[in-house]
Amino acid sequence: MNKLFLALLLLFTSMSISAQQALFGGAEIVSPEVHDNGTVTFRVMAPEANNVQLVGDWMPMDGWVRKPQAMTKDDKGLWTLTTATLSPDLYSYNIVVDGVKTTDPSNVYMIRDVSSVFSVFIVGGGKADLYKVNNVPHGTVAKRWYDSPGNNMKRRLTVYTPAGYETSKKDYPVFYLLHGMGGDEEAWIALGRTAQIMDNLIAQGKAEPMIVVMTNGNVAQQAAPGESAKGLYKPTMRLDHTMDGKMEETFKDVMTFVESNYRVKKGMDNTAIAGLSMGGFHSLHISRSYPKTFGYVGLFSAAVKPMEGTTSKFYEDMMTSIKAQNKNGLKLYWIGMGKTDFLYQGMVEYRKELDAINMSYEYHESEGGHTWTNWRDYLSIFATRLFK
Amino acid sequence: MNKLFLALLLLFTSMSISAQQALFGGAEIVSPEVHDNGTVTFRVMAPEANNVQLVGDWMPMDGWVRKPQAMTKDDKGLWTLTTATLSPDLYSYNIVVDGVKTTDPSNVYMIRDVSSVFSVFIVGGGKADLYKVNNVPHGTVAKRWYDSPGNNMKRRLTVYTPAGYETSKKDYPVFYLLHGMGGDEEAWIALGRTAQIMDNLIAQGKAEPMIVVMTNGNVAQQAAPGESAKGLYKPTMRLDHTMDGKMEETFKDVMTFVESNYRVKKGMDNTAIAGLSMGGFHSLHISRSYPKTFGYVGLFSAAVKPMEGTTSKFYEDMMTSIKAQNKNGLKLYWIGMGKTDFLYQGMVEYRKELDAINMSYEYHESEGGHTWTNWRDYLSIFATRLFK
Repeated sequence: MNKLFLALLLLFTSMSISAQQALFGGAEIVSPEVHDNGTVTFRVMAPEANNVQLVGDWMPMDGWVRKPQAMTKDDKGLWTLTTATLSPDLYSYNIVVDGVKTTDPSNVYMIRDVSSVFSVFIVGGGKADLYKVNNVPHGTVAKRWYDSPGNNMKRRLTVYTPAGYETSKKDYPVFYLLHGMGGDEEAWIALGRTAQIMDNLIAQGKAEPMIVVMTNGNVAQQAAPGESAKGLYKPTMRLDHTMDGKMEETFKDVMTFVESNYRVKKGMDNTAIAGLSMGGFHSLHISRSYPKTFGYVGLFSAAVKPMEGTTSKFYEDMMTSIKAQNKNGLKLYWIGMGKTDFLYQGMVEYRKELDAINMSYEYHESEGGHTWTNWRDYLSIFATRLFK
Repeated sequence: MNKLFLALLLLFTSMSISAQQALFGGAEIVSPEVHDNGTVTFRVMAPEANNVQLVGDWMPMDGWVRKPQAMTKDDKGLWTLTTATLSPDLYSYNIVVDGVKTTDPSNVYMIRDVSSVFSVFIVGGGKADLYKVNNVPHGTVAKRWYDSPGNNMKRRLTVYTPAGYETSKKDYPVFYLLHGMGGDEEAWIALGRTAQIMDNLIAQGKAEPMIVVMTNGNVAQQAAPGESAKGLYKPTMRLDHTMDGKMEETFKDVMTFVESNYRVKKGMDNTAIAGLSMGGFHSLHISRSYPKTFGYVGLFSAAVKPMEGTTSKFYEDMMTSIKAQNKNGLKLYWIGMGKTDFLYQGMVEYRKELDAINMSYEYHESEGGHTWTNWRDYLSIFATRLFK
């Protein structure tokens, strides 16, 4: 029988090594390799290719796109590129092999953003240590389905419960965290590293243990691509029913579900809502439309006003309701915006309107634009300010 | 302000379309396209490439590897390949662009198997309809951490709870489902489509509502690659502490966690264990080492006997304990094996030993070998036999 065990070992070890050797004619490739000084080396074994490039989100934009950078080929056909020092963050990139943009074959860590899949890596240190899985107590991440009578469908969401939730008898405050256009209930947990950020902030005593509920803001959609009966279709940007009042109207279905399925501390002092871009827009309008519900509101790179011609009652009497929101026990109205964000000027104008009604808010202006780098940052700051 | 909304739309729509157009010089590519007759067309836009191939798990093996098949280039540089009719199943594949084996850039659905990432698709109909997300009530999938004093670490596992678990007051039977060598707590939920299979079988009334607990059988490891403090390292096949008795010894930590965190019906009539390959080996030895615990045992393409020189008490007195297991209220001892599996002969010998002690077992022999195709099949059959 020991022959069989050996065969088992051989089968698996040879499959992973020889399959690559057969294709690459060499040893296993390590890519990316993050060096201690923050530079990163990428490697692609491609002796037959004429041109291998790399495009990463740390590279400058050229209009709407980034220009891939050439990798360098050695005499064995190994293409390499080493970056300058990158500051601590989670980065995403693709390789381009003879014009085909795809994922790094030596890196199993990937994240989907709408219809694109990127290889990812983390340069640690500083704020990026919050994005790592560290040796701290870990919360639970659950993918759940809830009933949304307002949308006449079952819908999917992601729930983070902090370490100890299941065995404690305590009630917990709730933080609703909303994605941007094109995202879904996977966006914050994957690109946003929400579970890691919350685990680490709670372990450091910087954030209160809380439940984080990550919804799907495309109310025409049941679930993230591949997770509904629509099958494994090619995702595209959803624009219908994303900013027409339906998300705001049916948000009560989410809250009903959460409050009847989790041990929730109720009341505005224990309820927060924040979102990025379109999710910031949703958070703005939901928070003013559900009076005395949300004590903490976060607008991350938020859009502010609805599309012309939108007639939803959820976008009426905006400043009147915000004035009421300001007087009804609001604890924190937090606005984060990047200096080069294309929504920057809209927020300048919105802040003028807020100032005109003596609204209390905090404004955090950062470098950069409409990026996950900023949104992870804003989450890391905002989460420490909740429920205290 | 409407200009900002338009800019928002433009930003996102142009990023997803123009980024591809810039690289591919054309319209969006659909790949794979599963046709109604079960053939599948793959497309890669690669005008600059000299050779684009495709390698999929439906193609024949050539020794330890599969030989990629050539795709055909048209005058616009679009490479295509259409398969013969594929029978219903979940399939995985890679494209090879000028010698670089990677994922299909037009398909966002991918699954990692140990250190390789494959693009995946489903050809529906028949058994494969169980692998799809259908319009049925959906259970919850949770990634949780439990304390394993026996391994002196916190470890991660995946728990499926059936639709209605959270709001019912009922207790549920538990099915422990174990992966094979190189796998981890992600294997069954990703490659095995466990949540979809269970959702569908339960909705059809073919399986009882049950809790399914998917453990990590590499007890030297806390969690799947990327999910522990080891960081985003390159996964390799773990061979240490996988079949040395430690998994069997510390399985009680898993059960303690499950029984104190879930509403569990206890006793053999409500407890099942099954696993594939190494997980079948674990299931065999755990089930005979925890007397009167598991009423239902499933060995899927299982290894049977330990490596020479292994001294763990968990591998002693094998047939004596199995004889006792047979007499102590065992409900089902189910063995699944593929005709061309490299472990086939070992199971022939084991069945002789079982016959010699008049063990009651069911033997299911299928076509094919040591594959997820078979393991999804075995799960779909075994799950319908539990707790009845």
